[in-house]
Amino acid sequence: MEGVVRCPANNIPLSPIGFLQRASLVYADRLSLVYGDSLRFTWGETYRRCLILASALDSLGVSRGHVVAAFAPNVPAMYELHFAVPMAGAVFCTLNTRLNAATVAVLLRHSDTKVVFVDEQFLAVVIEAFKVMSRRGEKLPQLVTICDKDRPPSEIDRGLDYEGLLASGDPEFEIRHPRDETDPISLNYTSGTTSSPKGVVYSHRGAYLNSLVAALLNEMISMPVYLWTVPMFHCNGWCLTWAIAALGGTNICLRNVTAGGIFDNIVKHRVTHMSGAPTVLNMIANAPPSVQKPLPGKVSIMTGGAAPPPQVLFSMEAMGFNVMHSYGLTETYGPATVCTWKPEWNSLPPDTRARIKARQGLHHIALAEVDIKDPVTMKSVPADAKTMGEVMLRGNTIMEGYLKDENATRAAFEGGWFRTGDLAIRHPDYYIELKDRSKDIIISGGENISTIEVEAVLFSHPDILEAAVVGRPDDYWGETPCAFVKLKDGRGPVTEAQIIGYCREKLPHFMAPRTVIFSDLPKTLTGKTQKFVLRERAKALGSLPRTASRL
Amino acid sequence: MEGVVRCPANNIPLSPIGFLQRASLVYADRLSLVYGDSLRFTWGETYRRCLILASALDSLGVSRGHVVAAFAPNVPAMYELHFAVPMAGAVFCTLNTRLNAATVAVLLRHSDTKVVFVDEQFLAVVIEAFKVMSRRGEKLPQLVTICDKDRPPSEIDRGLDYEGLLASGDPEFEIRHPRDETDPISLNYTSGTTSSPKGVVYSHRGAYLNSLVAALLNEMISMPVYLWTVPMFHCNGWCLTWAIAALGGTNICLRNVTAGGIFDNIVKHRVTHMSGAPTVLNMIANAPPSVQKPLPGKVSIMTGGAAPPPQVLFSMEAMGFNVMHSYGLTETYGPATVCTWKPEWNSLPPDTRARIKARQGLHHIALAEVDIKDPVTMKSVPADAKTMGEVMLRGNTIMEGYLKDENATRAAFEGGWFRTGDLAIRHPDYYIELKDRSKDIIISGGENISTIEVEAVLFSHPDILEAAVVGRPDDYWGETPCAFVKLKDGRGPVTEAQIIGYCREKLPHFMAPRTVIFSDLPKTLTGKTQKFVLRERAKALGSLPRTASRL
Repeated sequence: MEGVVRCPANNIPLSPIGFLQRASLVYADRLSLVYGDSLRFTWGETYRRCLILASALDSLGVSRGHVVAAFAPNVPAMYELHFAVPMAGAVFCTLNTRLNAATVAVLLRHSDTKVVFVDEQFLAVVIEAFKVMSRRGEKLPQLVTICDKDRPPSEIDRGLDYEGLLASGDPEFEIRHPRDETDPISLNYTSGTTSSPKGVVYSHRGAYLNSLVAALLNEMISMPVYLWTVPMFHCNGWCLTWAIAALGGTNICLRNVTAGGIFDNIVKHRVTHMSGAPTVLNMIANAPPSVQKPLPGKVSIMTGGAAPPPQVLFSMEAMGFNVMHSYGLTETYGPATVCTWKPEWNSLPPDTRARIKARQGLHHIALAEVDIKDPVTMKSVPADAKTMGEVMLRGNTIMEGYLKDENATRAAFEGGWFRTGDLAIRHPDYYIELKDRSKDIIISGGENISTIEVEAVLFSHPDILEAAVVGRPDDYWGETPCAFVKLKDGRGPVTEAQIIGYCREKLPHFMAPRTVIFSDLPKTLTGKTQKFVLRERAKALGSLPRTASRL
Repeated sequence: MEGVVRCPANNIPLSPIGFLQRASLVYADRLSLVYGDSLRFTWGETYRRCLILASALDSLGVSRGHVVAAFAPNVPAMYELHFAVPMAGAVFCTLNTRLNAATVAVLLRHSDTKVVFVDEQFLAVVIEAFKVMSRRGEKLPQLVTICDKDRPPSEIDRGLDYEGLLASGDPEFEIRHPRDETDPISLNYTSGTTSSPKGVVYSHRGAYLNSLVAALLNEMISMPVYLWTVPMFHCNGWCLTWAIAALGGTNICLRNVTAGGIFDNIVKHRVTHMSGAPTVLNMIANAPPSVQKPLPGKVSIMTGGAAPPPQVLFSMEAMGFNVMHSYGLTETYGPATVCTWKPEWNSLPPDTRARIKARQGLHHIALAEVDIKDPVTMKSVPADAKTMGEVMLRGNTIMEGYLKDENATRAAFEGGWFRTGDLAIRHPDYYIELKDRSKDIIISGGENISTIEVEAVLFSHPDILEAAVVGRPDDYWGETPCAFVKLKDGRGPVTEAQIIGYCREKLPHFMAPRTVIFSDLPKTLTGKTQKFVLRERAKALGSLPRTASRL
């Protein structure tokens, strides 16, 4: 249009860095961060600390586009690095603390990390990873250790000290804002079980947009009190690291997530919001009465990764939690869809409410669209609550791609959609409901069996704490469902036949497990059950004896 | 970074159109819009109506980049056009209904409007404007009239009928999404008093961002109930037209804003949010007891344009309103700064609270920065609560420019900042406080007098409803403050000397008015007092007789 111009007055690259700059003015004297009994910072202090940390990174030779990594739980340094690293113009790579030394070595190498910040608790793993890298003749990143208290004397080389590094910084450092809003801000390795690492690249633009949306999705208004029960190394804490600064909220940091710690912190700091995988919900719902405390007010908790089991949901609601259910992947900056709750559903019977809440819902407003498509024809499936298709997404909070793997990036975006690999149906109201990972589906006698549906029935059993279902090879059916279950403490005994009988009451016969194994469940680094391990175990059992009767 | 790509899966132009598409799925059966006793639409219906309206515009020859205008109050059609026009790829120009025919003719011509939607109530003005244009040999836009009920038979040419036009549309119309997110979405003429029209151009990107921010600023969570007391022709209703769709809220449309209508609608629809200039606040605070009703819950009201006078604030708080104070201009898509309220201020004495709430605060999170600068040196003024400078802003919710006036655009953005022309100070906490428009400041005996400060004192007088202060020529002092005041109904009598005495008790002597005129105040189209008219009147009074005593 004639008369318009783009200039620094009206065109600034979107970036979460501005959230902190603004918080340092609007919320200067308000609490930004609380950790344990004594550590408290204001937004003015957090801004100053991040600024000097950015300057210290610069002194260490970190410049625009370099990668700086962290291997730490939800301690204050981990929060500060979310701003300081981008403020130095660098890309922040958060490593899952459950990784072993061999994987850490691979990822430090793959990302070409210049500086790695390591929490004392996890130092041994990184020292070991460094040894691996040294043996291979690889250049080691600069090590900086993070300690809760003064650093103890040590025989091993602990590199620089976090607080010592800060003491060397310059508060007049000039922030390196992104030149383009699609410049990378962070790198999140997915916990894929395949051998080649997948480094998901987030942009400043995506992080900015997802932060605003996270505030809306979590129904946060100004100055929330947020308890850190979701690891900051998962999708940068589902982008809430940055969102809390945008809202001038207070971060309650937690080194270890325990039921007691959750209740204590909620009461002490009047927590308003938190998030977590279903394991966190389980922890709360099954907390011993001795650690439970009455909530001082409504606490909203966003969950994702799997639907909240009904009994867990009911227990939490009875305690005063507002459980919200979302779905997303590392590639989507955290939650991509949410089961937006409608007031009229409040009057439905509990089981119906739980069934609705188990749906993944619809995309949030920074995503343009969620669709369920046939992955071959790319045709949308009907909203008939039964036809399965692949969940596909597109929008501005989809990753920029996989670092150094353009083939994988192009495959993920084939056809102009991000292909999640998850299978779902669409209800008549268009809310989606996940049925399985494409690779997890069981095909038995030509019928597709959604392992999620079988697991939902197992979860409803009063004695079962955790359950996972995989296919067991079967000479006749091809596969049959094989359930691995972990009982609640002090429950049982319960037999395989009883559990199979329970499932047959609630499911079509062919969907009920033919085999039940009682055991602990192996978990991935993100806390999800490692189905490939269970699949191996099921395979090792061999084919079930031929069953004569058809269904 | 190696491996990343930009493609339709992860890069979609930001646009509010997506809010409506999403609302039609997530909130399909929820009320989108209520008008009067009988008109109600759901988000599914609103989406369908906007889609067919977009198709009807296409049939009328409207294509990408064309301008479509409206001259209407806050009726349902006005809301629908906010989506339908952009969905047709066109630019929506909302004309202030207080404009006269001559100005409407100028603006229709300046904007090269193809189609103009006119509400029945204001039809005569546009018919008259058409006559002016015809006399000049200018091409007339297609006229479409909007009627609340069936269109009455008429002798004059009323053009097409809104509902009739909709009946001709195609619900399969393919939305024309912006090709670039900086494409124009709307055109807002400012109520400047200079002769050349200034058409402020908004982009899809700016509108998207400001909508999300408006939701956060107004402390809205999902599904608010919003009462339309701010005209949609002001900054597209401060971008809340689009924001309400993003949140799946309910729009309560109001043809005429009256105290009775406000209370009735709040109670009937359980309104949660509204906005308005101080005149709306005045209307509520001074509503006769016969129309006042107890609020069914907390109602948040965002005000801007001038600080809420203390007595008005106290009355509204007592009724249960949460008054929020923001500051912005047409060029900033509505609110640009907000006086973010801190809980610790709740325990301050009422007068202190009112004084703090009168501050304009700090920029919201879609703006990068607000600064108070010396307009010549471009140096920031100190945060000393006394040094005045010009309010300057930069960020992504600053207009694209003035239509067909690149010189004015470049002047507004000179030095990389949007220059507001407003003068302010900065408090030690960096909150800004407006002192005056640069052109409104009174310079008396070499001293700057902020007319806003004098007006604040006048507003605190129990008998005064409205007040405005301008400079009166003075042979000795250059200028002295001259107050125009309107008394509350049934108050008085009060004398000039009493009011001057009242001001002298509360202000430095030189700041107190030397002249007080009792009269109605002339208003601009945006409801602000027309100071240039008052300045003329003060000038006509001539110089005050020489005063012997210095202060």
